[in-house]
Amino acid sequence: MNKKYKKENDFSYSLGVTVTIELLKQRPQTVEFVYFHSQFNSEETKKLIKELCEKNNIQIVCNDKIFNVLSNKENCYVIGEFKKYKADIDFNQSQVVLVNPSNTGNLGTIIRSMLGFDIKNLAIIEPAVDIFDPKTIRASMGAVFNVNFTYFKTIQEYEKHASNLAKYSFMLDGKNVLQKLKKTNSNYALIFGNEASGLPDYYKKFSPVFINHSKAIDSLNLQTAVSIALYEFTK
Amino acid sequence: MNKKYKKENDFSYSLGVTVTIELLKQRPQTVEFVYFHSQFNSEETKKLIKELCEKNNIQIVCNDKIFNVLSNKENCYVIGEFKKYKADIDFNQSQVVLVNPSNTGNLGTIIRSMLGFDIKNLAIIEPAVDIFDPKTIRASMGAVFNVNFTYFKTIQEYEKHASNLAKYSFMLDGKNVLQKLKKTNSNYALIFGNEASGLPDYYKKFSPVFINHSKAIDSLNLQTAVSIALYEFTK
Repeated sequence: MNKKYKKENDFSYSLGVTVTIELLKQRPQTVEFVYFHSQFNSEETKKLIKELCEKNNIQIVCNDKIFNVLSNKENCYVIGEFKKYKADIDFNQSQVVLVNPSNTGNLGTIIRSMLGFDIKNLAIIEPAVDIFDPKTIRASMGAVFNVNFTYFKTIQEYEKHASNLAKYSFMLDGKNVLQKLKKTNSNYALIFGNEASGLPDYYKKFSPVFINHSKAIDSLNLQTAVSIALYEFTK
Repeated sequence: MNKKYKKENDFSYSLGVTVTIELLKQRPQTVEFVYFHSQFNSEETKKLIKELCEKNNIQIVCNDKIFNVLSNKENCYVIGEFKKYKADIDFNQSQVVLVNPSNTGNLGTIIRSMLGFDIKNLAIIEPAVDIFDPKTIRASMGAVFNVNFTYFKTIQEYEKHASNLAKYSFMLDGKNVLQKLKKTNSNYALIFGNEASGLPDYYKKFSPVFINHSKAIDSLNLQTAVSIALYEFTK
């Protein structure tokens, strides 16, 4: 407790008011403590958080030290400490698959877009960044607590479970242009590669899709590509 | 020269290889110096940059000091120094209007998406961040050098010039849902508000558009909203 976050820890932190409220609403049973900074003085927000904590028997600790350890520059007056949990994906629902995502901020904003388009299942193929990293959680603005996720060692392991999903791999040399794609009626998996390297050739065996863009840029950034694909598929 | 970047300066910097190459290709006449770090040892890239500099009579300076001043942690072995320039927008083309954008990184990634969808004119309503900030330039991956832009003191000043454009304001209470919108045949202006506060009521007089999303999130982030709108309008 009160230490810098590490991936090996079995607990993590929500940094900030919005994220901590989302944690308390979506995953109250996992919360161990809520910390208030001595400079936290929005009475209305305090009251809301206190109510959520009382309802779930969560202790509020007034302690500035943890803020120095966990949050760098940003204005952060509330922190939630919670036990990591499992929230396995449902293979009977449409989903996003991220292969080797390497940036916590991107992962967070992608999860936020997923929730925005009501796609609540995320498969992550390793190696990959940590979904419980406080930076991921913060970038998601707490959306992570609203989404199911499962890590897989390999894409083959994922495929074993996902046989009933229509699989689309987003690749720069994809034959199908998203703008003209006839969408499936079945549930689907939208598969995206690493920020820098994209998807390797193996993924051509799925339906490879290209989001048509001008030659003036190499590629759309990952978060943009995922958001546009989600917009189009949920339209 | 060799000082920290300030908005008042009449020069700015491209930090990194990709961005500097883009600067040399798109705006060679503005470049005053290119700096090489002593640890820059990719011979092929060096050769390409040297050729571009020779063609345009640009001096290459080997000097590590400027790197300490201008770039913080990131791997950055090449810097371009250039004079700020005007590249006014063309009101006979479709465009993006950003009202009070406050984040340099967002502005850069939005410009990159614009270039990806071949929309090359950007109006910015003040107060707003600086398009020539090295952070904007870097986040755009150099796309900024490929785009026209004009700052306006007020939206009314912008409107005087933009009378022939179909104007769409993206608002959370917009009556027209993007997913069902009948798009115009004329050139258009897509108008977006500040990251935190969105657009004020004044903008309802344009065609207000809402990108339909689930109630589980407050709003899509600005960069996501702009990218999705560009995707849909250029489809």
